[in-house]
Amino acid sequence: MIDLLENERIDDLNLKGYKIIQNKKDFCFGIDAVLLSAFASASKGECVLDLCTGTGILPILMAAKTKAEHFSAVEIQQRSAEMARRSVKLNALDDRIDIINGDIKDITDYFACGSFDVLTCNPPYMADGRGAKNTFTPKVIARHEVMCTIFDVMTAASKMLRYGGRMYLVHRPDRLVDIFAAARQCSIEPKRLRMVQPYKHKIANLVLIELVRGGKPFLKIDPPLVVYREKGEYTDSIKAIYSEEN
Amino acid sequence: MIDLLENERIDDLNLKGYKIIQNKKDFCFGIDAVLLSAFASASKGECVLDLCTGTGILPILMAAKTKAEHFSAVEIQQRSAEMARRSVKLNALDDRIDIINGDIKDITDYFACGSFDVLTCNPPYMADGRGAKNTFTPKVIARHEVMCTIFDVMTAASKMLRYGGRMYLVHRPDRLVDIFAAARQCSIEPKRLRMVQPYKHKIANLVLIELVRGGKPFLKIDPPLVVYREKGEYTDSIKAIYSEEN
Repeated sequence: MIDLLENERIDDLNLKGYKIIQNKKDFCFGIDAVLLSAFASASKGECVLDLCTGTGILPILMAAKTKAEHFSAVEIQQRSAEMARRSVKLNALDDRIDIINGDIKDITDYFACGSFDVLTCNPPYMADGRGAKNTFTPKVIARHEVMCTIFDVMTAASKMLRYGGRMYLVHRPDRLVDIFAAARQCSIEPKRLRMVQPYKHKIANLVLIELVRGGKPFLKIDPPLVVYREKGEYTDSIKAIYSEEN
Repeated sequence: MIDLLENERIDDLNLKGYKIIQNKKDFCFGIDAVLLSAFASASKGECVLDLCTGTGILPILMAAKTKAEHFSAVEIQQRSAEMARRSVKLNALDDRIDIINGDIKDITDYFACGSFDVLTCNPPYMADGRGAKNTFTPKVIARHEVMCTIFDVMTAASKMLRYGGRMYLVHRPDRLVDIFAAARQCSIEPKRLRMVQPYKHKIANLVLIELVRGGKPFLKIDPPLVVYREKGEYTDSIKAIYSEEN
């Protein structure tokens, strides 16, 4: 039996019967995490690290979709990390997923350098000071760069990935210059980019990026991923992502 | 009367009756220049600088399409600059366009800092050492960064643009990280990006970027511009660009 705290609920992931515990009042995962889990790849035997894991959605989705050996995931907020641990247990994934409650700025306290083949991250999107930010609520910490910037993410990734290891990131397109500048500074080269547009003729509102530690400069741009064909109806590409498990 | 040298021909631009002199054996302008001239904007009274102007295609197209006050254009290759001058004369644009045969690394020898409202550039695309490059022929100089890198372009732009002035660039998407890194270093902020795809489901092969000197970080991603609907048939967007003059 898994205990649920106040405002918590169990959501079905429609994927191998996996479930996730979320708190209605806190940050709940969105399409971003699902798209990142489909964009990322991890092969049999690979070790994966997820930064800013929140309630652990990424490692749980990736555990379902890949044959990766092991997932480690770091979350700074104790309540989220604790929820993630209960979700891992709920799905009987204890042997494949470890949740660490810690700060990615201290990442070498938890793992040896170069320990991972693959790194995933769905970080806070908003540059500190941009957008509404009144108090350090769990939601604000998940959305704004108050405790971790894109530069912190790249720095941790450059320490944790083996040379040639891949990083998969979902972010906002308006931050693309910040992301590329930080990546270059940390010797993690953006190699593939896919814009996500809500509709065919709308501007992109998400971006998926594959980076390689020590990669040579050469960026490939995939055709954009369009989410809705029309209001309320997903495109075939998105339907395919949501039904991957079938 | 305009004299034509060996291998030169006069091409009609289908735009206000304007023409351009090109050398069949050298670099001839492509869709890149046409797309850039449509992506760029210059208002009445503004002064525009074109870097790496080649045969002067950008200022001639922009002179036809905008009410900008004056265009200055710099080209390192004497033969191209001289051809550009004859094209300017052929179109009776002597009072609006000046062609300078010079090196953009010495840009302050030709103009005072902050002299321009708008800057355009269709630079060599290939990083030096990448791709075929045997000798320093005019074509190689136009295509490869042997005489001018993206960092040289950004450095010249940061000197020549007034604070808040706009830069419009066409380049290859695979160089996007180099472009953004150089732009940041020169305090010219990428503000708008449009990918150009040959077909709807193909990866992008050109990118159009608007940058602002001293602009705040925030990048807007326009929906991609698709060139062909099917083989040999332009999309409506491209047809509209090619018939702008009508």
